[in-house]
Amino acid sequence: MNKHRAVVGNILARYAKLSQATLLRDLPRQSPAYLYDLLADYPGRSAKGLRPALCLAICSAFGGEIRRALNSAVAAELFHNAFLIHDDIQDESEQRRGLPTLHTLHGVGIALNVGAATNLLGLQRIMANREILGSRLAWEIAAETEIMFRHSLEGQALELGWIHENACNLTDNDYYRMCLKKTSWYTCIYPCRIGALIAGQTAHNGSNLDQFAWYLGAAFQIQDDLLNLTGDYAVYGKEILGDLWEGKRTLMVIHLLQNLDGADATRLRTFLGLRREQRTDQQVRWVLDCMRRTGSLTHAERCARELADAAQLEIDKALYGTPESDDRNFLLAMPEYVITRDY
Amino acid sequence: MNKHRAVVGNILARYAKLSQATLLRDLPRQSPAYLYDLLADYPGRSAKGLRPALCLAICSAFGGEIRRALNSAVAAELFHNAFLIHDDIQDESEQRRGLPTLHTLHGVGIALNVGAATNLLGLQRIMANREILGSRLAWEIAAETEIMFRHSLEGQALELGWIHENACNLTDNDYYRMCLKKTSWYTCIYPCRIGALIAGQTAHNGSNLDQFAWYLGAAFQIQDDLLNLTGDYAVYGKEILGDLWEGKRTLMVIHLLQNLDGADATRLRTFLGLRREQRTDQQVRWVLDCMRRTGSLTHAERCARELADAAQLEIDKALYGTPESDDRNFLLAMPEYVITRDY
Repeated sequence: MNKHRAVVGNILARYAKLSQATLLRDLPRQSPAYLYDLLADYPGRSAKGLRPALCLAICSAFGGEIRRALNSAVAAELFHNAFLIHDDIQDESEQRRGLPTLHTLHGVGIALNVGAATNLLGLQRIMANREILGSRLAWEIAAETEIMFRHSLEGQALELGWIHENACNLTDNDYYRMCLKKTSWYTCIYPCRIGALIAGQTAHNGSNLDQFAWYLGAAFQIQDDLLNLTGDYAVYGKEILGDLWEGKRTLMVIHLLQNLDGADATRLRTFLGLRREQRTDQQVRWVLDCMRRTGSLTHAERCARELADAAQLEIDKALYGTPESDDRNFLLAMPEYVITRDY
Repeated sequence: MNKHRAVVGNILARYAKLSQATLLRDLPRQSPAYLYDLLADYPGRSAKGLRPALCLAICSAFGGEIRRALNSAVAAELFHNAFLIHDDIQDESEQRRGLPTLHTLHGVGIALNVGAATNLLGLQRIMANREILGSRLAWEIAAETEIMFRHSLEGQALELGWIHENACNLTDNDYYRMCLKKTSWYTCIYPCRIGALIAGQTAHNGSNLDQFAWYLGAAFQIQDDLLNLTGDYAVYGKEILGDLWEGKRTLMVIHLLQNLDGADATRLRTFLGLRREQRTDQQVRWVLDCMRRTGSLTHAERCARELADAAQLEIDKALYGTPESDDRNFLLAMPEYVITRDY
């Protein structure tokens, strides 16, 4: 294990455990079973806990108290779980965190409802901030929550719209815009902003912290997409090559669309225009082979590296002058971590 | 047209038009198209506007100002539309307000996202109440919104769980509990409570207004279920017999389960245990014939009548001493209206 992974791993494990334990402890235990019994499923599965860890570490690095931020950190993790449940329905995904997806287990109807209820649990915590943080700060965090939801839904709509329309003329910038909204906002920007707000910082658009979070989220997503192609299922926990089965427009697919020509280009566009169940194992393997041959994976790795470097510059500036601490070291090591992680 | 329908029709049309125009006027017009262009679809279809009308009429009948309640009334209508979009996915419904359902038109993924965004538009309005009504009242309405969501999701889970488990030993009381949560809360209790709050009334559990709203919602739902079996598609706008295709546990199905025996009872339980696509037109017709023969429709009509009578007693008490007005007459005529309407 390299140095970054050790530094990140310790803090990530500590905060993931704290937020998961709090989340699971506070889940309502009541009927109906098809709602309340299932709320614990995704949150109870092994997860990185990236979002609560970012929120708590940022708060602490800026001199705030963990105990005041924990409720919001757990809310961020609840929103994440709700997104996963709905996202798995939308993408028709089969595996999540090493187990079958919720809708595979219980049907789309029940899973959709559990996702909505998971969002509601998050919103209840955002409302509970009024007691914990006072009315003014609770309100600012509620406003950030509204912004986060808006971007996330827009990012999801971009991605689903591209698949629906079989969009084949996309650029890297299209991907980055989608990624900013779909991944960076709720994974990094939102947890960092609320952590900073609770520590008494003023959030402003385009701050070093915002830039860090945006680059970090994009690097994280590209690495996620790469692991989906080349990872080890036992470590990664999602079906390998699932993104190709789902027709997702990753940076690698966009690179391939730009770099194939003639019959191969037509073949790729035809493949992307199929419905999931029409695709074959042979076709999926062919797309992966083309990506290797055309340098699409190398291109994406390079982009992830550039984003991690940019995130590094921004977090160095954002944390300039803050005292040495585990949280600070964790944050400084995050850019390298997100692009070298194997799950 | 009978007297009640004329009294209700005028106010309903006026408030439905006002809230629909406000809702559609304020929809964001921006990209991505697969989110924002679709937000207007369900709200733009012809609808009764029952929820905003209840909210505005209650507010006005208690001496409040319509202009202060309009934002919340529109929020209630947005939540209703979001529920419809998700409910149609969950029930695999094909028709809504005389047109194909959203997921039939654009796929489950995109429709699920549009439903979530419609909820977000509602929440934005609940947050905007801070400017319109001040922090304290805005907070009370937000708290009512949270309660409403909780009950609605629980009601939905009850209904979906029964279908999933092929529950065949249900009682009328099980149905009423589900109906209180799934229909009455967001259709009647929530709009009435927020209308009353904005008019300066104190909301308390089990008030005459709460009782009215609960009985009214149940009567409304039973009539809806009856129209689903015997209505005219051109007027009703949903697929006739859709509830039977979906295996819904209506009061009529519960009555039939209690009153068939021998081979017929087995046949009904087997039918209810099938998946939608396994059911046949012949089977669905057979269930309807059994219901007619066994008096299930008459039983449900009688229950709806009793609920409407109970709602009448409660609204008479709730409005005792309020001055004569169109809004008051509208509310007093609602119980009779909901069980005699044909759409």
